[in-house]
Amino acid sequence: MQADGVDFVLATSPHNVSYLLGGYRSHFFSEMTAIGLSRHAAAVGYPCGQPEHAFYIGGPVEAAQQELEPLWVRDAVNAVWTTHRLGVAAADLIRGLRLDQATIAVELPFLAADTFVALVESLPQARVVDAVPILEHLRAVKLPHELTLISEAADAIVEAMLATLDGARPGITTRELAALLAAEEMQRGLRFDYCLAAVGPGVNRTPSDVRWGTGQALSLDSGGSKAGYIGDLARMAVIGRPSRRQRELLKEVGSVQAAAREPIRAGVIGKEIYSSAVAALALCRHGSSMEFVAHGMGLVSHEAPRLTSTGPVAYPADHVDLPLEAGMVLSIETTAIDPEVGLVKLEDTVAVTESGSIGYGDRAQGWQIVS
Amino acid sequence: MQADGVDFVLATSPHNVSYLLGGYRSHFFSEMTAIGLSRHAAAVGYPCGQPEHAFYIGGPVEAAQQELEPLWVRDAVNAVWTTHRLGVAAADLIRGLRLDQATIAVELPFLAADTFVALVESLPQARVVDAVPILEHLRAVKLPHELTLISEAADAIVEAMLATLDGARPGITTRELAALLAAEEMQRGLRFDYCLAAVGPGVNRTPSDVRWGTGQALSLDSGGSKAGYIGDLARMAVIGRPSRRQRELLKEVGSVQAAAREPIRAGVIGKEIYSSAVAALALCRHGSSMEFVAHGMGLVSHEAPRLTSTGPVAYPADHVDLPLEAGMVLSIETTAIDPEVGLVKLEDTVAVTESGSIGYGDRAQGWQIVS
Repeated sequence: MQADGVDFVLATSPHNVSYLLGGYRSHFFSEMTAIGLSRHAAAVGYPCGQPEHAFYIGGPVEAAQQELEPLWVRDAVNAVWTTHRLGVAAADLIRGLRLDQATIAVELPFLAADTFVALVESLPQARVVDAVPILEHLRAVKLPHELTLISEAADAIVEAMLATLDGARPGITTRELAALLAAEEMQRGLRFDYCLAAVGPGVNRTPSDVRWGTGQALSLDSGGSKAGYIGDLARMAVIGRPSRRQRELLKEVGSVQAAAREPIRAGVIGKEIYSSAVAALALCRHGSSMEFVAHGMGLVSHEAPRLTSTGPVAYPADHVDLPLEAGMVLSIETTAIDPEVGLVKLEDTVAVTESGSIGYGDRAQGWQIVS
Repeated sequence: MQADGVDFVLATSPHNVSYLLGGYRSHFFSEMTAIGLSRHAAAVGYPCGQPEHAFYIGGPVEAAQQELEPLWVRDAVNAVWTTHRLGVAAADLIRGLRLDQATIAVELPFLAADTFVALVESLPQARVVDAVPILEHLRAVKLPHELTLISEAADAIVEAMLATLDGARPGITTRELAALLAAEEMQRGLRFDYCLAAVGPGVNRTPSDVRWGTGQALSLDSGGSKAGYIGDLARMAVIGRPSRRQRELLKEVGSVQAAAREPIRAGVIGKEIYSSAVAALALCRHGSSMEFVAHGMGLVSHEAPRLTSTGPVAYPADHVDLPLEAGMVLSIETTAIDPEVGLVKLEDTVAVTESGSIGYGDRAQGWQIVS
């Protein structure tokens, strides 16, 4: 924070509030947030270098939970029912810390407009900047307990996929597959986030009435989270024996995945992952219809480290020329689109270590055969 | 809208976007919203009286879903990856409709600060007001398909509670009960929202390591939603036979519930519900430790009609002196706090009809006995 000239951070996204509070989330508002004419409003205030003056602002119903799960911050103000009041309450506490003329970082995409207006009107002399990159940077290297959660989430996703395939029969729709997968993920302690499912030769991955028939490739790509930490993997299945073309495509996708993962270890410059993958792609017969992506992941599905400057959004490509660090977690994705076979995709989760890397949920990358 | 002097509504909350689009939600972003340095951003723009010029702005991944689930709005711009870009894109479309000097209603608690800033900077001559009450008013009377979803959600909550109790044994913790209930709700097609569970004589309803023992009252209060429509009910259970005091308390709570529900029908003035409940409370031996609440519900857990001016937030009590309308849905809640028994609560869902009312999930209001 100090490097950014920031004096104070006000975190308001569910993931960053929970991160700064060591895992605490209001159990009542973790899924449902709208209530009355506003919504559940919570914030962690953190004055740079003064953790003893950090505070939490939440709703009245949270006091009971905090009796059982005490917060580490000294001040917990469980008194706010609306996003507007959150802004007023935060401004009061910031003024109490004599930071009303300071540089205050807020999470612009996760701060309600009326919280923002109340804050700016109450603190007209403060300079307000975006906190998202600062907080993302804090989260980029994961601690051991975070790695455990990501690893468990990844394992659970793959197990849930295999269980879903076990229960699948020819003619099942992608909507039914998605519902089965959701149930299997939840049984394994995950929050189900999404399922993308395409049946070849189609490439539309929206769960729908499309049926999975014999010989058709099924691409399953799903996200689910454990205590907020995301598992996100993609695997392939077919009813009956895979065709030669199906085998060839998945083999090529696998070769790009392997090439991308090969250089990963602490100290390696981020762009080496892309160069290795792109070189492998060039060797593939279907390379021109294949796409490679790699990105950091954790509490957010695409977060630091960023390993490329290409992509739909002009984000800072912060790790293209910087070394990877042990504890970073990467998602490695290769997708082929084929007019006969459809969509063939693998997505793997890889944690950076001092000596190399560890794959989480690292199995079932071949054709899963359903009979 | 016209009555409020509003020319244009920009809806950005998940519930109102879905409501205005007849149920559409991005399946990919319905649970997980954070991505990259921002989050999924979506909006419905609706020029007052000109549905043919309504538009949707969403993310690029949504185009595939809309191929299968076409939107009724003519313009669907699936091109926005960040909340900032949403504001810029919305302002462009609003200017295209020549409404840049109009009164524009936005959902302040559900609009990202950077969307708001982009909008205000791009449309400096627009007057910006809060859309939340306008949209809530639109939603107050439910259509038949909405009533069906609320009714199914309520039934599923009660069934899930009974199934959870079926699987419960003495010594089970409230955390385990909440997990069982979540699984039972999800099996019945609900999204699990929360579970409040108190074991008497304790009154802390946070799921925890507290164990449920023989003779102790268990209060279960849970919310779960079907296609966004909320079921929210509370029921009581005990291991073994309920004591005389337990029976007396639940009987009194039930009498207040019955009194509150008695006057409900289209045309009745809202405050009659409270007067009837308060009169019944006065007859209860434990009335001084009992509390009564009634509120509208639907896509939001507390919404119009509002039936009281008391409460933690100074909301407009819009239906205190206005007649109820057929299709409104009410949540009716009575809670007793007793030093020996703990928390005794019933919460029921009641739909207003022309001739009276219908209870949804309307069973199991007595002591559920677990052996």
